[in-house]
Amino acid sequence: MSKPFLLYTFPTPNGVKVSAFLEELKTVYPSIQYDVESINISTNIQKRQYQEPWFIKLNPNGRIPVLVDRSRNDFTVFETGAILLYLQQHYDKENNFGWDPKENPDEYSQSLQWMFFANAGVGPMQGQLNHFNKAAPIDIPYAKKRSLVSSASPIQVAELLLGYLDETKRLYGVLEIRLGQDRDWLVGPGRGVYSIADINVLAWVRVHAFGGIESLDEWPNVKKWVEAAHARPGFSAGLDVGRS
Amino acid sequence: MSKPFLLYTFPTPNGVKVSAFLEELKTVYPSIQYDVESINISTNIQKRQYQEPWFIKLNPNGRIPVLVDRSRNDFTVFETGAILLYLQQHYDKENNFGWDPKENPDEYSQSLQWMFFANAGVGPMQGQLNHFNKAAPIDIPYAKKRSLVSSASPIQVAELLLGYLDETKRLYGVLEIRLGQDRDWLVGPGRGVYSIADINVLAWVRVHAFGGIESLDEWPNVKKWVEAAHARPGFSAGLDVGRS
Repeated sequence: MSKPFLLYTFPTPNGVKVSAFLEELKTVYPSIQYDVESINISTNIQKRQYQEPWFIKLNPNGRIPVLVDRSRNDFTVFETGAILLYLQQHYDKENNFGWDPKENPDEYSQSLQWMFFANAGVGPMQGQLNHFNKAAPIDIPYAKKRSLVSSASPIQVAELLLGYLDETKRLYGVLEIRLGQDRDWLVGPGRGVYSIADINVLAWVRVHAFGGIESLDEWPNVKKWVEAAHARPGFSAGLDVGRS
Repeated sequence: MSKPFLLYTFPTPNGVKVSAFLEELKTVYPSIQYDVESINISTNIQKRQYQEPWFIKLNPNGRIPVLVDRSRNDFTVFETGAILLYLQQHYDKENNFGWDPKENPDEYSQSLQWMFFANAGVGPMQGQLNHFNKAAPIDIPYAKKRSLVSSASPIQVAELLLGYLDETKRLYGVLEIRLGQDRDWLVGPGRGVYSIADINVLAWVRVHAFGGIESLDEWPNVKKWVEAAHARPGFSAGLDVGRS
């Protein structure tokens, strides 16, 4: 039996990716266990911890989640995409949630493609959208309509920020194209197979409302896909792990 | 002998990642060849092509670069991280530029960690910085100093954008931490081994000036690393591929 993992996390979309996958793994491999060290970013503790040598040593980028594998000499993994791929390679021996690079190189590559797409696109853009939606000091369309600002320039800057809403919606549209190709899941033959490629981006799309996207009705296949994931006991069990 | 790849590209940082790696591969495996289809994003052709079914079929996200592998039934790969990993797995049989997931799982995971870090962090943030640096309609510090805008709010919005400069610099600092640990390259034993993990992020850092970061003097190990990559004939040969 392997030793419990140590997971530094908080239930942000990035944190949830890993706890949701660990809970999925537990449904198939009951011996898997993990300890949680909550890093409460909402109280700004994480920001201070960025500068603390013990955390920078785990992840020079100073971000949760970080996984420490006590069964493999405390091997440490940061970046959600890399954590999911690491756990799948080492602890999903039956390949229930992913594909072996040698045996199924095409599905493996497609997983990587959708994971990089999500982490380079959906994550950063929706993250900026959330940030802006929360931090926005003025209601832009209102300000624009009322010409509250005499110079046009600051409004042009604000429009750049509004672009995050459009970009996030466009990226949901990319997922809609893929899932609209008679698919239940992003990767795998036929209608696809639920995998880390789904978990990796579901964790973001499920919290669309936080960025001001009230409903997924525009993307019916994405909506169905999010609902199907939530119906899974493993996925759902991982959604609030690390709340302190 | 394998058929030439078909590469849709343009020499942006993301495009350069793939052409630089293909040129590196050619120095070791002379039979590797590739045809280039230039997608000139500077003349806005790409934007129109996003909506064209032929390109969306290749990459639903409508972005260059895209690799088509004619030797493997036209298997198509999008997302730079996934393209580099695909080429390394299938065409770098001696593992000169990366690690086998089974034989060297730790180095393989570290490659993935640094590649996701780069593609989720350096790429999007430096991309936003470039966009802002180019598109910014007002000189923010000047506007702020002169109180050109009576309401504070639009300036607060502008400050959010200035944050991209700080964030990009912070991310360079993360690379500096890693390379400052007596390393020449990001991954591999000892001083590290030049690999796709380096190429993947070098393509962005090398064009720091485009975002307004004039010099790399603040990050001496990063500076040395960028210079060392440019001294490689393969890397350098890939820097302008796809210019139309």
